[in-house]
This record gives sequence, C-alpha cells and structure tokens, in this order.
Amino acid sequence: MGSHQTWQTRIAEKQATQFGKIPKAWRLPSEYLIIGGETCANGVMDIPAKCGILSAEELHITQDFDAVTLTKAVQLGTIKAKSVATAFCKRAAIAQQLTNCLTETMFDEAIKRGEFLDEYLESHGKPLGPLHGVPISLKESFDCAGVQSTMGLVSYLDKPVQTEHGVTASIVQNLGAILYCKTNVPQTLMSSDSHNNVFGRTLNPHKLSLTAGGSSGGEGALVALRGSILGVGTDMAGSGMALFLQAVLESQPWNRDPLLYAIPWRAEVAASVPKKLRIGYMLEDAKFPVHPPVRRAMESSAQALAQAGHDVIPLSELPSLETGLELGLDACSFDNTVEWKKHVDVSGEPLVPSLHDNLPLLTRKVDKGGYTIDEIFAHNATKLQYKAGWNVVFARHQLDVLLCPGAETTAVPHDTIGAPPYTSLFSLLEFPAVILPVGRAMKDVDRDDLAPASSLRPYRSDLVDGAPTAIQVVSRSFRDEELLAAGRVIDQCLRKANGPTST
Amino acid sequence: MGSHQTWQTRIAEKQATQFGKIPKAWRLPSEYLIIGGETCANGVMDIPAKCGILSAEELHITQDFDAVTLTKAVQLGTIKAKSVATAFCKRAAIAQQLTNCLTETMFDEAIKRGEFLDEYLESHGKPLGPLHGVPISLKESFDCAGVQSTMGLVSYLDKPVQTEHGVTASIVQNLGAILYCKTNVPQTLMSSDSHNNVFGRTLNPHKLSLTAGGSSGGEGALVALRGSILGVGTDMAGSGMALFLQAVLESQPWNRDPLLYAIPWRAEVAASVPKKLRIGYMLEDAKFPVHPPVRRAMESSAQALAQAGHDVIPLSELPSLETGLELGLDACSFDNTVEWKKHVDVSGEPLVPSLHDNLPLLTRKVDKGGYTIDEIFAHNATKLQYKAGWNVVFARHQLDVLLCPGAETTAVPHDTIGAPPYTSLFSLLEFPAVILPVGRAMKDVDRDDLAPASSLRPYRSDLVDGAPTAIQVVSRSFRDEELLAAGRVIDQCLRKANGPTST
Repeated sequence: MGSHQTWQTRIAEKQATQFGKIPKAWRLPSEYLIIGGETCANGVMDIPAKCGILSAEELHITQDFDAVTLTKAVQLGTIKAKSVATAFCKRAAIAQQLTNCLTETMFDEAIKRGEFLDEYLESHGKPLGPLHGVPISLKESFDCAGVQSTMGLVSYLDKPVQTEHGVTASIVQNLGAILYCKTNVPQTLMSSDSHNNVFGRTLNPHKLSLTAGGSSGGEGALVALRGSILGVGTDMAGSGMALFLQAVLESQPWNRDPLLYAIPWRAEVAASVPKKLRIGYMLEDAKFPVHPPVRRAMESSAQALAQAGHDVIPLSELPSLETGLELGLDACSFDNTVEWKKHVDVSGEPLVPSLHDNLPLLTRKVDKGGYTIDEIFAHNATKLQYKAGWNVVFARHQLDVLLCPGAETTAVPHDTIGAPPYTSLFSLLEFPAVILPVGRAMKDVDRDDLAPASSLRPYRSDLVDGAPTAIQVVSRSFRDEELLAAGRVIDQCLRKANGPTST
Repeated sequence: MGSHQTWQTRIAEKQATQFGKIPKAWRLPSEYLIIGGETCANGVMDIPAKCGILSAEELHITQDFDAVTLTKAVQLGTIKAKSVATAFCKRAAIAQQLTNCLTETMFDEAIKRGEFLDEYLESHGKPLGPLHGVPISLKESFDCAGVQSTMGLVSYLDKPVQTEHGVTASIVQNLGAILYCKTNVPQTLMSSDSHNNVFGRTLNPHKLSLTAGGSSGGEGALVALRGSILGVGTDMAGSGMALFLQAVLESQPWNRDPLLYAIPWRAEVAASVPKKLRIGYMLEDAKFPVHPPVRRAMESSAQALAQAGHDVIPLSELPSLETGLELGLDACSFDNTVEWKKHVDVSGEPLVPSLHDNLPLLTRKVDKGGYTIDEIFAHNATKLQYKAGWNVVFARHQLDVLLCPGAETTAVPHDTIGAPPYTSLFSLLEFPAVILPVGRAMKDVDRDDLAPASSLRPYRSDLVDGAPTAIQVVSRSFRDEELLAAGRVIDQCLRKANGPTST
C-alpha cells in the first residue's frame, strides 16, 4: 500500500473502480436501492425480474434452466453463449447492487468469451467441452487472470492482478465455461459472516437484515438471486453439482494440482437412483438444540422420506457435537504466532465485528505460551477416536447417509452468527455433505414459545420470518458419488412433498 | 515381568515354551541344524524338501499352488483343508528351525480349523468365503486370539494372551482363512533388521549370513521357504495379493476398523490386463547409487519391458531421495519424549545393534530441546511440496507406474542395513508399491570393480553372491488397482524374459 494513503482512502478507490465497471444501463434505478441496507427487513428476490434491466430473453435464460439444461441448449445452438454471458453478467450486476455479493467482475471478457464459444461451435461442429457455455462464478479465493485476489484484505490491495488463472479457473475454462465474476468472503475467511473492509458486507437477498453466511456467502447470495447458475465456493451447492464434479474430475485435475487425490470419479454411482435409502436421522445435538423453523424442516423431511419408503433410523448416543466443535477450534488456534492477523494489522484496518468476536476462540493459548507438540499429539489422538465414533455410527446402522440440520438456526441477524457446529463437524471429519432447501420460517407457526429453553442462541420469530430453512445430508469420506445420488433422490422426494414453495 | 526374574530368564522361558509347541516329529535332524547360524554363508532353501519331514502330498500342497489355485482345489474338494493346514504348519515349523522366522504358533488350532472347514464345505455345499482353506501367516503386530502380541519387547511378555482376534485376523478368518502363525519383527519395529531379544534374529533363507530385512522380515523368510502362501505384513507380497485385497476390501473392513478409508475396490480395474504401459524408469538416485546386481536387474528389466512393447521413459531431474529420507526420519523423531524407548528400557533389555545404530537418527533433536510446533509446520509444508514434486513427475510424463530399485543393495550382512531410502520414500508419499523378484547376484558378473565409487555402502560380491535381486513398481496414491494390474503384466513379462530361475 502506498504509505501516503490511509486504508480508508485505499478501499474507497477500489470500490469506486469496481462500481465503475458496471455499465450505466445495468445500474438499478434509485427506487430499488433506497429500500436496501443491512438494517432493512425486506427481501430483494423479486427485483431482478421487475427492475426492467433484463429483457424477456435474459429472464428466460437466467430463470428457466439449470446448468445441465442450459449447456444443452447452448450446445444445440438454440441459445447463444454470448446471450448467456450477457444475461448472467447483467443479473450478477443487479445482485451486486442489491446485496454486495461480488468482489471482482470480468463482464467484458465474459461476453467476448461467449462470442468465441459461439464461433467455436459453429466452426468445429462440436462444443469445446462438457461445460460449453456454462457461466461459472468463483469465490474470491480462486485466482483468475486479469483481476486481483485480495480476500478482502486491505494489505493485499497492493498485490498485482493475477497474470494467470489458478487451477480451478483454468480447468473450468478449458472445459468451456464462462468466467464472469468472483464473490465476496469474510475478512481472512475465518468467520461465518461474508464481511470485510475492502468490499463491505454481503446481505441476505431473502431478508437484507440477515447474514448471508460464509465463508461462501457472496456465492450464496448471487446464486439465490440467480445471478449465477453454478457457483464454486469451497463448499458447493446447486443443481449443476454433479455436472461440475464429473466434468472437472474427468479432466484429471490431479495432473494440474499435484496435491489432489487422484481418485477416479465413479460416474455410474453418481448417476444411480437408489430406491430405498437407509437414512440416519439426527434431529439435533442436545447442546445445540434447533430453533423452531429448523425443527419443523427436519421433522417434515423425515416424515416425507419415511412415507416415500426410505428407512429413516432415529439415532441416539451420538458423539458430542461440542467435542467436534472444540477440536475444530483447537486446530484453528495451533498457529502460535497468529500469522493470519498480521495480514490484517499491517494496513491499519480493524477486524470486522464477527472476526473480532471470534478472536478469543482463534487465539486460545497465545497468552499461555501457545500449544506444545505434546498437546498437538493428544489433539490428533482425540480427533482420530472422535472420527472413529462417527464411522461406527455409519457402520452399526449400515447408513447410506446421515440427515441432520445444517445449522441450529436459520440465517441470523448480522454479527450474531458465531461458530457453526453442524457444518464445521463435517469439515473436521472430512465427510462430504450437501445442504437442501426445504421451506421457510413462518412466525405464526414457528412461535417464540416453541424455542428451546437451553438454546445458546436467542430465537426471535419476527426477525427471521421468511428466511429459508434447509436440511443437511452427509455421507462418510470418499463416498461423494453415493452422496450425490442419495441427495438427488432426497431432494426430489422433499420437493414433491413440500410443493414448489420449498425451492 | 515378575520382578524376581531377569530379562534373560524371562526370554529363555518364552523361547523354550515356543519350541515346545513344535511336535517332535516336525523337529529337524541335527545334521540340518549344525550348518546354520547367522555367520553361515549357506542357504537353506532346499532343506524343507529334502529333510524328510514333509510327505509327497505335503510337498505338493506347499510347492505347486498359489493362493488362488489352492483355494480352488480346496473348494472343489480335491484337497482337504485339514491337509493344507497340516502341510503349512509343518513347513512353517521347519522354516522356524532354519531361520527363526516365527513368534507365535497356532498349529493345533489351525489343524482343527481345517477339519471344521472341510465339514462346513461338506454340510453346506459351498465354501465359507473367498479365502476358504487359505493358510494365512500374520506379522507379529497383528493381534490373534490365544497368543500374545509382544512385538519382541521383553516388557510386553507380561501382557496377557489376546482374548479376541484383531480386525485383520477376524476379517480373514470370517472369509474362510486358516491362521496358524505370527512372524518375527525388529525390536519396536523401528529398524530394518528383524531382530529382537525375545525371539532372536530372523536369518535370510537364501544365505543365512544376510539379513532378512524388515520390519516384515519374518514374513519374508517364511514365504521364501514356502512355509506360507499368503503372508500379511504391513507391506505385502505374494501372488495371492489381488485375491487377498479383493476379498478383504469387499468385506467392507471400514465397518470393522472405523479409521479405514471407505473406498470401494475397483475389481474390474485390478483384473484388467493393460497392453501398453507408460513406465517411468528411475535407475537410481545419484546420492544412493545402486550396487552392481541391482543395476543389472534394473537394466535388464527396462530392456525386457521395452522389447515387449511398453513405453519405458527414462526420468531425470527427479526430487531428491535424500530429502525424502530426511523428511521420513524427521517424522520418526517428532516424539520429543522418545516414548517407544521407554518400553525397551523398562525391562532392562538392551537395544538390538541395528536399532542402537539408528538411535541418533531417531532422536535427532532430543538433546536440543526437541522439535517446536513451528518446525513441524515447516516440515509439513516442505513435505507437501516434496509430494507435489513426485506427483508432477507422474503427471508430466503421464505415467502408469514408476520402475525403480527397492533398495540400492541386495540383502546385506546382519547389522549393516541402515535406513532404506528407496522404500521409506513411498511410505512418506503414501504411494502403493510392489517388489518383484528378477534374478540373483552373481559374483563373477556383478564384480567388485563395477561398484559405484560414491556408494555410501560397501559392496562385496563374495558376501552377497546368490542373494535375490528385485525391482520396485510404484503408482501414485489411490491407484492400488491400477498398480496391481500393471504389476501383474510386468511380472509376467520379466518371468518370460528371465526364465524360471528368476522366481
């Protein structure tokens, strides 16, 4: 950073540059912006369709396809890749103005890329690859040629723009995808609120006063507004997941990133349709009881799955979620020198509130001389035993998948999110997991008096009314293909049971 | 250990008990024993066949089958499982008297087990499982019901006999195998010489004055003498490996040992016969130049494989083997309290010479205050980069497998073995590897004047004359099935090229 500039000046410049890259014709009329802001309890899900910026064809392109059907349409020539690129760039620009979900944009390059793909299809008579014409948004942490990778850190604004794509961007580009934007993240990625001083805070499009979560919160808000059809976080979601995984894994990415596992993709397993699943059912952990809307989502899902003929097996005596959370937090604190914080402090910028609140959890032993090797050995031994305990659950009940909450709450008001025990668990265990939407919080049904007395988190039905609810489906390690197959069956079952309002 | 007994008394008792479990009729006439001992330059490979203890049928059973054809014969009823059990118990007893390769024996139980399997086949009309009637020897480190697991430590002689099988013993028993003995290991398993104070030193049956290697040296000597047809070390070798791996992995062992990876076995890949392999060829690392017999084995193998139509790609600019060895030794030294040594010292027994010689390598920083967490972080970062370097070799040359030495030497005289850079490398990288036999050292061909001047290890053609030579075939992680398929093709190609003397 130029030493003559304050960090405030530096981010003001960056934000102005980024805003300047949105064409004037794509800028929202002020009537849609005045409702916004992080204290606003309204949602903005309807604005892209009614703001008048998108043509009828652009609404069709961004709303009536998933990644699989869209690439088919482009490959058949019924929709031009250039039209796809333009439509998603415009919709992403609208999403950015409503929720602050983007970091870097590559709109001009994306539209040129669409033209190139159309010419390629015309001249070669075949698509460039299995992702031909699919627009893909990438989380800020993926390097893309032509833009910066700042992770929302002011000190990283001095880094040059990337001259080359990173491995993921390079692979999906080679497979025919259109890269057009990167999405917002928490400062340092070490909180669950996608908020940093460089790009600001991402808002939840269903209700602006709620968090978009994180660390892939920008991606989540953009996908929700259909500004992206296939977003890549360091988790993933979306109907294009099987397409994406198969296309990327069949490209042998381990030959590009030599630290990846070279495990072949079992496409026939991922495409299978299991008729009768054994589903372990974990409504909640006693230490982290679920809020009323989440309980309703879980219970209705278990009921619908059982009615559809699946074996839903209630689980008891499970390993403690608190132990899993503690093990995960321990591991985040092992760096006795707190290296990550130096990258914040050097520019003079403050920690964002959610990260500031987590600081004691992330620096547990710093004031006591730090962790010793013996403590790390003990941690590793405990972790192995804890992992074994969860594998025993799968083995004893012969489970295909585990059904559990994705969080004890819906999205919560900004800066109240805390640690995520129900998802950090599966990062610790290295179990693949998918989150499936199943409905919405309803203040008249999910009443305050139904909230668990022992909850560590306050429940206010009025604050989260209308927020989406979800469930989580999990398999054991290296069963990603089985998880995708089960997840598809479960998703279809729940959509059928809950009707179109659940999506 | 009873405090009234010295460690010497304690091991004398154990050895007498073990010897007493060998029936008198199976004991070798003294004429075969007087040639023995660890200073004897003779081999004993011919003695089981000529000592008169084994009947013609027992010689047939132990010599004319591999694990696949033997279980077929038992399942067809042309050979009784009881006869198989008896034959291998007798031959293992002979091997034990010649090379000291066993720790615990379960001969009576094994013969009863054979009877049970015969009755089962008779009454059920089908075998108990895919390993029905296959005798399996297990390394000392696997727990078996009815015997101790001492690892050759005097202090562990106070442990009770195991009341239950461990996971591996339990799984193979459930699949129909016959357990009949456990095999010798180095004291603490942390040297490459299978030598400990409880059970003594295992000798190399090809030449008693040479080491049997380790840590699975007892297993190696027993298999070489055909006292076992399928031995399980914590490495593995033998023609029954594909049978064993498929049978064990299809039994879903991850439901028994919850820390195993639940990765399905790709049987069709393991059974495939690749017509044209891309084989990376690493003759040697400059820091660890190969001795003349190993060089000859490597060069003749590369030539035979190229002549058979495979692509043999000489590799240069490979990651340094010394770095790999140092990283492995570092990891062995991280325990700042040297916990393993306490289990030796508590009984008063001394370290065996090979372990005593390695002590400085295994306690590198103990006198300097031990490793710090920062040093372990740095080690892990270096290790990841080092692993990446080897994956890049596979990716850049699109290799199916790597062909390299298994060691820079043949078997060497006792207590001169040192660290094993060519095999510890692949433990570090977590790459699966197989060792294939290809011939023998010949003092008139592999002359002393051909030895590399820079070798850290002395070469004496007269001392290793007649010792088997071997090559190593390696794949990258999680490609075990591809490795087995390639290994089978390479083995058949080399046996064809070298004739029957190579086995």
